[in-house]
This record gives sequence, structure tokens and C-alpha cells, in this order.
Amino acid sequence: MAHIYVFSPSGAVRDKVAFRRGLQRLKELGHTVEVDVAALQSHTRFAGDDATRLAAIHRAAAAGADVALISRGGYGLTRLLPELRYRILAKAIEKGTRFVGLSDFTAFQNAMLARTGAITWAGPALGEDFGAEAPDDIMEACFDDMLTGQGEGAGWQFSRQTQQTYADRKPGVWARDAVLWGGNLAVLTSMLGTPYFPQVQKGVLFLEDIAEHPYRIERMLTQWLHAGILAQQKAIVLGQFTQYKLTPHDKGYKLDTVVHWLRSQLRIPVLTDLPFGHVSTKVCLPVGATVQLLVEDRDALFLWAHEHSL
Amino acid sequence: MAHIYVFSPSGAVRDKVAFRRGLQRLKELGHTVEVDVAALQSHTRFAGDDATRLAAIHRAAAAGADVALISRGGYGLTRLLPELRYRILAKAIEKGTRFVGLSDFTAFQNAMLARTGAITWAGPALGEDFGAEAPDDIMEACFDDMLTGQGEGAGWQFSRQTQQTYADRKPGVWARDAVLWGGNLAVLTSMLGTPYFPQVQKGVLFLEDIAEHPYRIERMLTQWLHAGILAQQKAIVLGQFTQYKLTPHDKGYKLDTVVHWLRSQLRIPVLTDLPFGHVSTKVCLPVGATVQLLVEDRDALFLWAHEHSL
Repeated sequence: MAHIYVFSPSGAVRDKVAFRRGLQRLKELGHTVEVDVAALQSHTRFAGDDATRLAAIHRAAAAGADVALISRGGYGLTRLLPELRYRILAKAIEKGTRFVGLSDFTAFQNAMLARTGAITWAGPALGEDFGAEAPDDIMEACFDDMLTGQGEGAGWQFSRQTQQTYADRKPGVWARDAVLWGGNLAVLTSMLGTPYFPQVQKGVLFLEDIAEHPYRIERMLTQWLHAGILAQQKAIVLGQFTQYKLTPHDKGYKLDTVVHWLRSQLRIPVLTDLPFGHVSTKVCLPVGATVQLLVEDRDALFLWAHEHSL
Repeated sequence: MAHIYVFSPSGAVRDKVAFRRGLQRLKELGHTVEVDVAALQSHTRFAGDDATRLAAIHRAAAAGADVALISRGGYGLTRLLPELRYRILAKAIEKGTRFVGLSDFTAFQNAMLARTGAITWAGPALGEDFGAEAPDDIMEACFDDMLTGQGEGAGWQFSRQTQQTYADRKPGVWARDAVLWGGNLAVLTSMLGTPYFPQVQKGVLFLEDIAEHPYRIERMLTQWLHAGILAQQKAIVLGQFTQYKLTPHDKGYKLDTVVHWLRSQLRIPVLTDLPFGHVSTKVCLPVGATVQLLVEDRDALFLWAHEHSL
């Protein structure tokens, strides 16, 4: 099984019960778990000050692990982006370490892609996923697939509404040899216009977010649209947008309104319902990998080339 | 007195009592008030659909008024930016119409600056300011100064902490002949990387926001920093950041932490306490005008050239 290195590049771990339960679960699954010395540090809202978190990231790269897994997201990575030693990190990835995480970790993943082209994995975090009272079966199976290099892909079923929207399109390959990129919408939007934002042409962009009102999601997508980024992609795949609150002022304005509006602005397909985001059931996706996007009826499938496996 | 045209480019007006009280107050002050035909329209959360709000903006420009005043902010302007008829709007401004507003209107103001160089005014909105149960004296005096062209400047006193931070700097002109730009941080950040974002070098940037947690303010400022925009300015002036909620997770992280961090990243001065934002007491500031920034002890003063007055 795998050697998993757990580290904290963003927010301080507050739920230590979930943290320990996560470590226990990974051990139960047969993995060797190594915990970074600063994994439980706390400096205001951060898992240690900038120097501490930077050192933790570089230790995760130096550990020679199969997986460098974040303890949790939060906030703190964008501050560190100018200080990351990109070449060393890319070297560790080349040697076989998979950096896995989501949410704030989106900043690391897309900066790595922008600066080095290295592939990282959008996937679970230790605490919320492996540390859940009942870890999700699909999440664990996808994590395992990533480790073994088997089942090089991720499939899901989208809504009937999405199916009807694209009823005129032929089933088959909707995006061929496209770079998969994306992650958390707010985090990635906060990198737009900086040297850490990937310049991906003809890619497939996947997005998710938590606790962002649909008008804010729309405002961010409007920025991407006006920056000319969305129209340059082959497809956009929306994951799970969760835990926002509509208000009486919205008067019928909702997430669907935003999706409908987005489609009216673009010729490329905007798929929905990707099982990825701040939800239990999540797939593992290789950020920066070249993928194929296959669609038939309500089924979508990402396929990617086999990479080094354990 | 002035001919004031009230229009709604962003969110639907829900507080009609404040709206009417605002109209009444402007009339009491001796102004002639004209209300746009769509000012009270509602389409989900917007003051009418995109076409309606676009038409309202262009009617405001065509009215030949001294002031085109927004009814309120909200959200909705960034969607419209590609459809604005910039040349026509700039012509109206040249002929003497001052576009006045804040918050979501930041998008209009900075897009106008980016596309035409025209000057607009960061200032009050009808409902929340003139429609308040007791409109603020300073706000009304500054609005009046703007109208009459008298008192071409705005002064304020900043905190002792800010004074101490820059104790080594000589009093006097801290920014000479600098373009004043800015407004709402979240709205302006949502324009970064788009053709509507002003490319201001050696300017003075003022910023305010409402209901944004300090970590989000920091994340936005980090984006500006990494995009290279902040270091290119002569000074940054922070207005009022209000109505956010700290949480137990913050453990001492607060707005001051962000200001302190920002200063550590920059050689230019970061002043504070500008009376502008989602607060009653607000000055009127010419977005896009060339200003002088004078500082002595705890006093700061913006001065700008006399423009056409009534």
C-alpha cells in the first residue's frame, strides 16, 4: 500500500478528533502514514505562520511519499505562492509523489501547473474525508484508483436538464486531448491576473465552491468571461456548489439562473453535477493532465493517460 | 441648484420608504429631481433585466442632468460592462453630468476610467444616504461641494497607529499628480484581468468593502499584490471595512492584521480611515481625476483641480 504524508499548508486544524480518525482510517486501509511535524500548529487562523507552512510543503515534497495529503483547506496558500520552490516540488512529483487536496489547495495545484506543468490531484482532505464518521465509499475507491493507477478515469451522471440543453450534440468525445484544470472557483478567481494563474487554452475547466451566493458565483464567472478565459476552453464542468443561502431579495434568482446565463454566453458545453467539491462523494482528478471528455445520454466520463502507479 | 437624475443600474430597490425619503430630501435641498422610468423595476434580484438597466444608464446620460445618482448598489453592473456605450457616456460627462454612486457602481466608474478616462464621482446613493432617517451632514456638505465646485478636496484624520507607522516620513505631498481610482474592493477585484480594469500607474488607490471577512480582504489584496498593481501606486488609502464577522477560528486574526501584513509587502504608504464606504459619513471623490495627497501629523488631504461647476 502507500506511504502517505499528511501536512497542513492552509488553515489550522481545529477538529483534532476528525484529524486522528482520518489517520486511523488511512492505517486501516493499509497505508503507512507519516504526519508532518507542524501539521497541528496554529498561528491565528493559519496552521503555523508563513515560514512554517512553506517548510511543511517542502518537507512533504522531500519525504519521498506516494501521496502528500492535506489535512484540510481553509485559507493561506495564495500568500505563499511567490515563495514556493517550484522546481523542487515538480521534481518530487516527477519522482512519484502525488499532491492531493482541494479547496484552498487549488492555489497550490494551479500555481504548480502554471509554473511547471506538473500534475497534482484534486481529491480528498484528511480530516473532512478520511476523518468523517463514515468515510465515503466512492471517495475511498477513487483515492485507491489514483494510487494503483487502475481505472484511469472518472465518470458521473449529470442532470436531465443538462442532457436536454445539449440534446442536439452528438454523443462521443466532447473534448479531445484537453488539459484538465480548475478546482475551487473563489480560490482560482483570486489568482486571475497573477503569474500563478494557468494559461490553459482548449482545456477542460472544472469548478466547485462552498458558501458563495449564486450572485457571487456569477460575478466570478463574469470576470472569467470578460477575461476571455471561458470561451478558450473546450468544456466547463461544474461540480458541487454548496452551503450558500438564498434570500428573499433573490426573488427566484438561484444557481440554475447562473448556469442558464453562463450557457447563454458560451458556445462550449457547460456540464453539471461532477461529484467534486465540499461534499462527501468526490472523485480524484489529475489537475494538469491531458484528458478526454466522453458524453453519452446523461453519462460523462473523463479519461486520462496512465501515469506511474505504485 | 442642481438637476438630479435618479436611476437604478444594479439591485432592485426594496426599501421604497427610503427611496421616497431620499427624493424628498433632495427636493428639500432645493434640487430638481427626475426619476428614471425603470428606477423601481424588479427582475429577480436586479432593478430590471440587463436591457432595462442598460437603457436606464443611457437615459441617465441623455437626460442632460447635473448629477446622475444611483438609487442603490447591490449587484448587476459587471454583467453590463461589455454593452455600455462608452463614448456616449463620456460625452455626457464632458457636457457636465456627474455620475455619482458607490459599491456595485465601482464597476461602472472604473470601466469608464479604463475605457475613456472620464471622471465619475464616488459618493452617496439615494436610498441609504439621502433616504436615511437623518442624512449625514458631512455627506450632504461634500455632495454640495461637488456640485458647486467649491472646496475641491477632501480631508480626514487617520489613526495614531497609522501616524506612528509613517512617523519617519516627512509631512507634505505624499502623492503628486496621481490618478485617484478605486472604490469597492470586491467589485474592483472582480474586474481584474478584464478589459474594464483601469491600468493606472503611479496612482492613488482607495478601497472599501462591506461584509467581507478580513481573510477575504487579504486574499483580494494578495491578488492585487501578485498582479503587480499595488507596488505601482504612489499610495493606498483604505476606507471603511464594515459588517464582517470574526469567528473563534480567527484567534486574533483581524483587519489590523491584514493592514499590518499589507504594509510589510509594500514600500508605498497605506493610509487608513478615509471616510468612505458603507457608512453614513462619506466624502465625494473624483474617480479618474488627478489629485495631490497631502499628509501632516494625522491629517490627510486630497486636492484636485477645479472642474466645471454649476
